[in-house]
Amino acid sequence: MKVIRDPVHGYIEIDELTTTLIDTPQMQRLRRIRQLGLSNLVYPGANHTRFEHSLGVMHLATMLTEQISSISAEEKDELRAAALLHDIGHGPLSHVTEGLIKRYTRKQHEDVKPILMKGPIADILEEHGLNASTIADHIRGQSALGQIINSEIDVDRMDYLVRDAHYTGVAFGLVDHVRLIHEMQFYEDKLVVGRGGLKAAESLLVSRFLMHPSVYYHHVSRIAETMFTRALDKLISQDIVDPFELRYMDDEHLFETMRHDEGYAGEMVRRLDERRLYKRALHVGFESVDKNVLRHRGKIERMEGEIAEIAGIDVTDVLIDIPKPPEIEEMQALIKTDGGMLHLDKASNIVATLEQAHIDNWKMGVYAPREHREAVGRAARDVFSVKKRTKQFRLTDL
Amino acid sequence: MKVIRDPVHGYIEIDELTTTLIDTPQMQRLRRIRQLGLSNLVYPGANHTRFEHSLGVMHLATMLTEQISSISAEEKDELRAAALLHDIGHGPLSHVTEGLIKRYTRKQHEDVKPILMKGPIADILEEHGLNASTIADHIRGQSALGQIINSEIDVDRMDYLVRDAHYTGVAFGLVDHVRLIHEMQFYEDKLVVGRGGLKAAESLLVSRFLMHPSVYYHHVSRIAETMFTRALDKLISQDIVDPFELRYMDDEHLFETMRHDEGYAGEMVRRLDERRLYKRALHVGFESVDKNVLRHRGKIERMEGEIAEIAGIDVTDVLIDIPKPPEIEEMQALIKTDGGMLHLDKASNIVATLEQAHIDNWKMGVYAPREHREAVGRAARDVFSVKKRTKQFRLTDL
Amino acid sequence: MKVIRDPVHGYIEIDELTTTLIDTPQMQRLRRIRQLGLSNLVYPGANHTRFEHSLGVMHLATMLTEQISSISAEEKDELRAAALLHDIGHGPLSHVTEGLIKRYTRKQHEDVKPILMKGPIADILEEHGLNASTIADHIRGQSALGQIINSEIDVDRMDYLVRDAHYTGVAFGLVDHVRLIHEMQFYEDKLVVGRGGLKAAESLLVSRFLMHPSVYYHHVSRIAETMFTRALDKLISQDIVDPFELRYMDDEHLFETMRHDEGYAGEMVRRLDERRLYKRALHVGFESVDKNVLRHRGKIERMEGEIAEIAGIDVTDVLIDIPKPPEIEEMQALIKTDGGMLHLDKASNIVATLEQAHIDNWKMGVYAPREHREAVGRAARDVFSVKKRTKQFRLTDL
Amino acid sequence: MKVIRDPVHGYIEIDELTTTLIDTPQMQRLRRIRQLGLSNLVYPGANHTRFEHSLGVMHLATMLTEQISSISAEEKDELRAAALLHDIGHGPLSHVTEGLIKRYTRKQHEDVKPILMKGPIADILEEHGLNASTIADHIRGQSALGQIINSEIDVDRMDYLVRDAHYTGVAFGLVDHVRLIHEMQFYEDKLVVGRGGLKAAESLLVSRFLMHPSVYYHHVSRIAETMFTRALDKLISQDIVDPFELRYMDDEHLFETMRHDEGYAGEMVRRLDERRLYKRALHVGFESVDKNVLRHRGKIERMEGEIAEIAGIDVTDVLIDIPKPPEIEEMQALIKTDGGMLHLDKASNIVATLEQAHIDNWKMGVYAPREHREAVGRAARDVFSVKKRTKQFRLTDL
Repeated sequence: MKVIRDPVHGYIEIDELTTTLIDTPQMQRLRRIRQLGLSNLVYPGANHTRFEHSLGVMHLATMLTEQISSISAEEKDELRAAALLHDIGHGPLSHVTEGLIKRYTRKQHEDVKPILMKGPIADILEEHGLNASTIADHIRGQSALGQIINSEIDVDRMDYLVRDAHYTGVAFGLVDHVRLIHEMQFYEDKLVVGRGGLKAAESLLVSRFLMHPSVYYHHVSRIAETMFTRALDKLISQDIVDPFELRYMDDEHLFETMRHDEGYAGEMVRRLDERRLYKRALHVGFESVDKNVLRHRGKIERMEGEIAEIAGIDVTDVLIDIPKPPEIEEMQALIKTDGGMLHLDKASNIVATLEQAHIDNWKMGVYAPREHREAVGRAARDVFSVKKRTKQFRLTDL
Repeated sequence: MKVIRDPVHGYIEIDELTTTLIDTPQMQRLRRIRQLGLSNLVYPGANHTRFEHSLGVMHLATMLTEQISSISAEEKDELRAAALLHDIGHGPLSHVTEGLIKRYTRKQHEDVKPILMKGPIADILEEHGLNASTIADHIRGQSALGQIINSEIDVDRMDYLVRDAHYTGVAFGLVDHVRLIHEMQFYEDKLVVGRGGLKAAESLLVSRFLMHPSVYYHHVSRIAETMFTRALDKLISQDIVDPFELRYMDDEHLFETMRHDEGYAGEMVRRLDERRLYKRALHVGFESVDKNVLRHRGKIERMEGEIAEIAGIDVTDVLIDIPKPPEIEEMQALIKTDGGMLHLDKASNIVATLEQAHIDNWKMGVYAPREHREAVGRAARDVFSVKKRTKQFRLTDL
Repeated sequence: MKVIRDPVHGYIEIDELTTTLIDTPQMQRLRRIRQLGLSNLVYPGANHTRFEHSLGVMHLATMLTEQISSISAEEKDELRAAALLHDIGHGPLSHVTEGLIKRYTRKQHEDVKPILMKGPIADILEEHGLNASTIADHIRGQSALGQIINSEIDVDRMDYLVRDAHYTGVAFGLVDHVRLIHEMQFYEDKLVVGRGGLKAAESLLVSRFLMHPSVYYHHVSRIAETMFTRALDKLISQDIVDPFELRYMDDEHLFETMRHDEGYAGEMVRRLDERRLYKRALHVGFESVDKNVLRHRGKIERMEGEIAEIAGIDVTDVLIDIPKPPEIEEMQALIKTDGGMLHLDKASNIVATLEQAHIDNWKMGVYAPREHREAVGRAARDVFSVKKRTKQFRLTDL
Repeated sequence: MKVIRDPVHGYIEIDELTTTLIDTPQMQRLRRIRQLGLSNLVYPGANHTRFEHSLGVMHLATMLTEQISSISAEEKDELRAAALLHDIGHGPLSHVTEGLIKRYTRKQHEDVKPILMKGPIADILEEHGLNASTIADHIRGQSALGQIINSEIDVDRMDYLVRDAHYTGVAFGLVDHVRLIHEMQFYEDKLVVGRGGLKAAESLLVSRFLMHPSVYYHHVSRIAETMFTRALDKLISQDIVDPFELRYMDDEHLFETMRHDEGYAGEMVRRLDERRLYKRALHVGFESVDKNVLRHRGKIERMEGEIAEIAGIDVTDVLIDIPKPPEIEEMQALIKTDGGMLHLDKASNIVATLEQAHIDNWKMGVYAPREHREAVGRAARDVFSVKKRTKQFRLTDL
């Protein structure tokens, strides 16, 4: 049993199986995939990678299974392998390329079966008598045990919340994950949280709520990511980048490819390299825009054209960013009480209201180079019929 | 300028004024007053005192005033003195004796003017040309500057939340107090939080929400505190303890006094010393009791008699504990936005719902020695007409 | 299995045996014994107790035994009990009263057999079929397993170093105790550290070296403790305090007893209460005094008389404090290498030199009330023939 | 005044000058230079960059200057600029390429004058009326103020020790840098540490001592770095990489360049990417080799040839690594005492012995692919006449 030093969990034990898996090129690639995409432009410390996160998820999954006597040694191995491998389907910059990969290849990052079925990982699994299909199901959360790493309240979330807080330095890494794990158990094939873990479960949701605007949706990250994905999309449409190759690339390789481009993509990446970011020309919440704004997500390029035309500038100088409203699937986690099972939002008043509270954090943005900021702002207000801010916006109005 | 090492804030600077005030017997007494009363029976690390908390509040108050140029040096001194002295009116075990002191003496712990007006503190203030009345007003929050240490969002709360988390080991000390303080300013004599501090303000309220059931209202603390206050009340009514003397006593002295008692009070304190605590015979939330239960707070002893009679035991073996519903005055803190000032609960959906969420955490208890637990439980269910738990309880039902 | 929240180790698991032991009056008394005596006069956060330290030692001992397969379940129980109970022989303020207790009763705090052989602890041990003698041997370190909690490198030291750092806020709690424990094993009935644990073992010694002058021998603590022990000694010689009773008393009770005294002892404790401490009239290292100074430790009172006479003041206004030179028994810990076993100071150059380095930190003090400070200083320099500081002092000169 | 969140120091304030400097391509490049080279192969969290370290050094330098009243506002600006820019001369992977850059270009990373004298940085400095030459002198430590960022005890060391501990998760980040800075002052143009800072200064040296074998000289990092530099050297000698360009490149660009190579360099980098590292065939301390071993540093390639020949393998399969013995220039830091100034190693016994203690940590290595490990090991023992380990090795024997 060897150990790896981890700033978040102390020491992580790795056995022969996990050591061998870690030493595959597929796992090593994750050393070069930043966990938080371009957030390091806001939080200079946020350079942590999917690699260490994967170790952390494996560590927490092991901790959880150790307290459940009904799981066999082989099942534990399969789950540990799944935990370790759960992110090998991620492309460069993690979630930043996720949307494009899905659009062009129909693959989500959890769809890793093909990666498990060939090459060194397949060999290792076979040697240890482990079933690649079962592991793939775990990773997609399509099995009882798989809920541990992929369900409403899973160890994946626990690790990334605490880890992201450690590296950004944000004070909100408050999840009492040790207590939460301690209180989790299986009940009729469902992973549930015992009554004693309710407060810890609340803390997880609240933590995610607080991290959202400060980290995950910080406007500077959104701007950088919008710039990056638009540039990448252009390279894909020019057949310079093969979207099917993306999930085998790392941050460095994709960045270098984009830097070599002499057109729009190259210019965008150089802007990112030198932190010459677009600025917010418009940045408003639900209370200021038409409630149908989410429907515009499919026709963003047309609207960018409109704005550019009104502002009298090139269309490449306008970027619209309409995020999806946050989904809080953790609300559906099951709490086991004396009287039966409840969904978390039924067991906790604060959780019940978090979905509404998340609405406060949603913002759409229109971004432009500094010199066009004002013109684009005026045009965008026009195109989106932006209202003066009214007091508050409730979920039921959507 | 000397420095004191503080586990929470690093180093705290003390100048000549504060050094001299610290060295008065009134301030030194706070070394022997535990910050969290009897919570150390639940959290063995919670032995921190009002003394270090007072240093912390002074430190944060100084940090806040340093960024406001309009405050004069003398005003700063007065505020620093007020911050340091703000808890010298507390009795033994802090909030544990607060209710009894108020009931018998009409004094709240913020009413410290008499203490400031005589003895060494008065001498020091006079020497430094500082006004004791002004300082007393600051402590009661009845002045503009006083809002810094006593208002809806003050540095008192910031210090105790982070400090209590440090010593209990609970993971919820998530307040970004540095950011919050950085964003605070005066606007027309009101202490307000700038727009950029909204998330930090939310984090403070959420932190308090999470700390409530885990620490401040943990059922074991409630049991111990109910036992203690009932014992103390008995000694007061027997003229053994003078309620007017309480705010000049420390934990040790009161405990020793009570230990010398040979009746009920002595027995209770010996139980606390040896951790032979009463147990929960009944422990239910608002959803299970009549909504008028709060009105019973005035006639607890009569109801204890009723329960004892039904259970066929001595009345001293029944303790009823009906806490006040939590007040969240922080919701009234002012947020300064472009369009004017808003109360925090209008500016934040999550804050708007916290009052409701706090209802989840309210529990009333009936406690009894282990051997009478069942009998008392049955009797209490009867007396309070306890319903089977229904799903949820909304604030508007109260 | 229940858990207790600990700020240092996270969660500590307690089983039925340990829960029952914890709930005895003997263990509960430790809640009222401060770990660091009077250090809270220097570090306001240092109010932690022997109780939580005992839980921590039990936690670490369990962690260590879990990795050694040859230990039986019963032996583990005995060791856990010993770890939990290892400090029940401490008197008030821990080490502060240790010297007096030993002088008057010949008992050291590890001599706990009589406490284990009667009362509730004896009952519990018998119920669980555990041998009180074996446990007493463990506590004195006179058994193979006992080395885990009482030997050159034991979990007792690991816990207190990290814990004292947490509560004082001092930055030196650097012990990598998890790694160190991981590398410990038994070899021919000796507890040894494997080669891979050498650096962690070095870190433990270095940590203790750094903590020494900053915390354990801070001059303000030394002054307070000298005042306190002299006062207590007086009460013992007046038959007001029975030295055989001390190890059954707690801090509060002893303080209250002393406060009731109307003579010297009462005055001293009131001084401590109000932090009117004696000041350093003389404070010098080995380089400035005769190398035979340590021999004076037996005739301190006579020398105080001499100084008082020269200074023309009352003898009670002079306190001499000649600490023992630090012993670093950890240097004798065994390191297991390929070629056999080495003592730690043979395996590590830095450890080899620590004993010498500790000499830098030794200081003798003569203390007096502020108003006599100068006169006492002059007289003391005379009596001790204090030299001008020469450059450095080597161990071999002693 | 804006703030940047830093996991180590909390918040770092940046003013207009520093903001503008940060936004130059030269500073932004540091975002892509890892602080600890290839240490992330050992510590998965060690992905932090020169960029955040530079912010940290600027933060600490500001803190230090703020307590010295004699420094003018302009001097402060120059020092802040110097602190921020002090690492812009680093090549990819920081110290990993330092040796090669020096060998081929005679430039050290502190020689940054040419970079300051042209381009956007020159413009900004001129705009603010700051002298580029003065700043360059500060960076080289060739000025009074420059000692703050480059001297025996400077804020550069303080930041990197604490920061490296945070990201590796190693427990030894024990520097009490706040206290140390608080005690630093200028005395006759020398930056000195006041008597009260002696313990904090000791802690800095001890921290570096403990970090050395665990982090900075961990054998896996040494292997990876030896592989990397040998590969890079080959590319330089083939004119594929221009050594004068290195200090303008970032990690990503250099790695991508090397990956495109189809010979030795490409193979080495792919090995690093997939963590197929060479193994230790020989790894011994001073006690096992001829004391003249350091003289071999100049003829490593010839000796690799010898070993390869004996082992009967290709010379590229042997890598010899003979590190320089550690220099501890901090020992020459000045401590100001009542009697004058002392070098730190004269004022502290532990520091006096650290140089000797560092000898324990020195190891030379001969590395080879796993399959040749044994053969190379035998040959290397032969070539270096490796002795059986004798007990200890003293500095004076060198």
